[in-house]
Amino acid sequence: MRHLFEISTSLLLAALAAPVIADNTPFSGGQWIDLSHEFSEDSLYWPTAQRFEKATAFEGMTEGGYFYSSYDISTSEHGGTHLDAPVHFAEVANSTEQIPLEQLLGIAAVIDVSDKAANNRDYLVSVSDIQAWERKHGNLPNGAIVLINTGSAKLWPDAATYMGTAERGSEAVANLHFPGIDPELATFLVEERNIKAVGIDTPSIDYGQSTDFLTHRILFAANIPGFENVAAVDKLPATGAFVVALPMKIRGGSGGPLRIISWIPD
Amino acid sequence: MRHLFEISTSLLLAALAAPVIADNTPFSGGQWIDLSHEFSEDSLYWPTAQRFEKATAFEGMTEGGYFYSSYDISTSEHGGTHLDAPVHFAEVANSTEQIPLEQLLGIAAVIDVSDKAANNRDYLVSVSDIQAWERKHGNLPNGAIVLINTGSAKLWPDAATYMGTAERGSEAVANLHFPGIDPELATFLVEERNIKAVGIDTPSIDYGQSTDFLTHRILFAANIPGFENVAAVDKLPATGAFVVALPMKIRGGSGGPLRIISWIPD
Repeated sequence: MRHLFEISTSLLLAALAAPVIADNTPFSGGQWIDLSHEFSEDSLYWPTAQRFEKATAFEGMTEGGYFYSSYDISTSEHGGTHLDAPVHFAEVANSTEQIPLEQLLGIAAVIDVSDKAANNRDYLVSVSDIQAWERKHGNLPNGAIVLINTGSAKLWPDAATYMGTAERGSEAVANLHFPGIDPELATFLVEERNIKAVGIDTPSIDYGQSTDFLTHRILFAANIPGFENVAAVDKLPATGAFVVALPMKIRGGSGGPLRIISWIPD
Repeated sequence: MRHLFEISTSLLLAALAAPVIADNTPFSGGQWIDLSHEFSEDSLYWPTAQRFEKATAFEGMTEGGYFYSSYDISTSEHGGTHLDAPVHFAEVANSTEQIPLEQLLGIAAVIDVSDKAANNRDYLVSVSDIQAWERKHGNLPNGAIVLINTGSAKLWPDAATYMGTAERGSEAVANLHFPGIDPELATFLVEERNIKAVGIDTPSIDYGQSTDFLTHRILFAANIPGFENVAAVDKLPATGAFVVALPMKIRGGSGGPLRIISWIPD
């Protein structure tokens, strides 16, 4: 039965595939990709943060004779593919539900530093990396969502290689090693450009060895949120992709689970 | 300081507002609206489901002299504005992370039954409601996301009026009263039309008095997911809006918190 059902499911999805992008949608001549890691017991979290847990409320046949499943979840706002709301590091700044929707939607500018970060897990993405991008593509577009490709997404979910340590607890924090954004670049983005948000394929927009989290503090004071543990950024073109980054709408949240996707025109 | 900061934030957001929809995005000549209720202690849940909770991990000044806030959350997958994945009521069907991304994006067909439901909180949306829509707008588009406007979104988060009872626990279930989708219509949608998903502005796609949850079972066996407690559906036109419904990507999930938005062309 399972086999038969799977065939009919395939047929159904094949049938759905055809009209997915109808002529009257804003999207045609391109494809959507998912930039989100799955939430599971494998999801990576800061060594001091509460990990994702999923508990079974019910799973199986009911007295009514039909199947039913339902789960409860718990998690830190800050783990897996997630949003950092500005209030995470800036007291008078937007919490999760206060971020204007249109700040979560925009044209991606993808900065590829994977070559430089390949042999330096403490790499800091610098102003010169942006300038190199701008020499090829022009200034960062107004309203851009800046996504950093450090080449780390493919290491997920191996904690030792992805974030420098698989240990947990406050002692493990000193052993974190992964690329992040240089605070000088954060200042440049706030003062010299007009961007909506930044995202990165590592656990934090500050690098693993940061102790003052200056990049967070600079960007968030300007109400520019961050997307962390973003997946598949290496699949995006340097320009032209359209990003939709929708966090769980937590009232007063300092962040939250994020589903981030991108449309890539042909 | 707060006042000054808020002014500068307003200026920043005003500056961002202009380029929000750049000429080279797929979206111009329209607006985005949010169809998601906030998650908070006020969020409505099934009387037997674990409600949303947000616990403070840290909030205040750090030893480093900067502000920091972080929270942990817990919730049933099924409460607030959320996804029902097909596996919620169909054993061999897609779980949350298995739903193809393009099934979560599509043209909305908005069925307004608010007049009929106004005086009947047990109203069942019927095949004839769809037929009335189709007489005006043509058959439901292939790949449509069918959204039901029962007029209930404005009652949120008052449990007594929105779902029929503010009581909690298994005894309260019999007191649930809110509109839902007639199982006959579910069968019609599966067999006679080719839709991606259904959504409704009530706690469930089956009405409050359902005991066999047939609408769930019929749609989910065909791998058609549901969106529940959808907000602001009364703001959508009957046709032409584009829906983006992104659930938290829970591996093996039966549903999950959902951020659902819509683009409305001018």
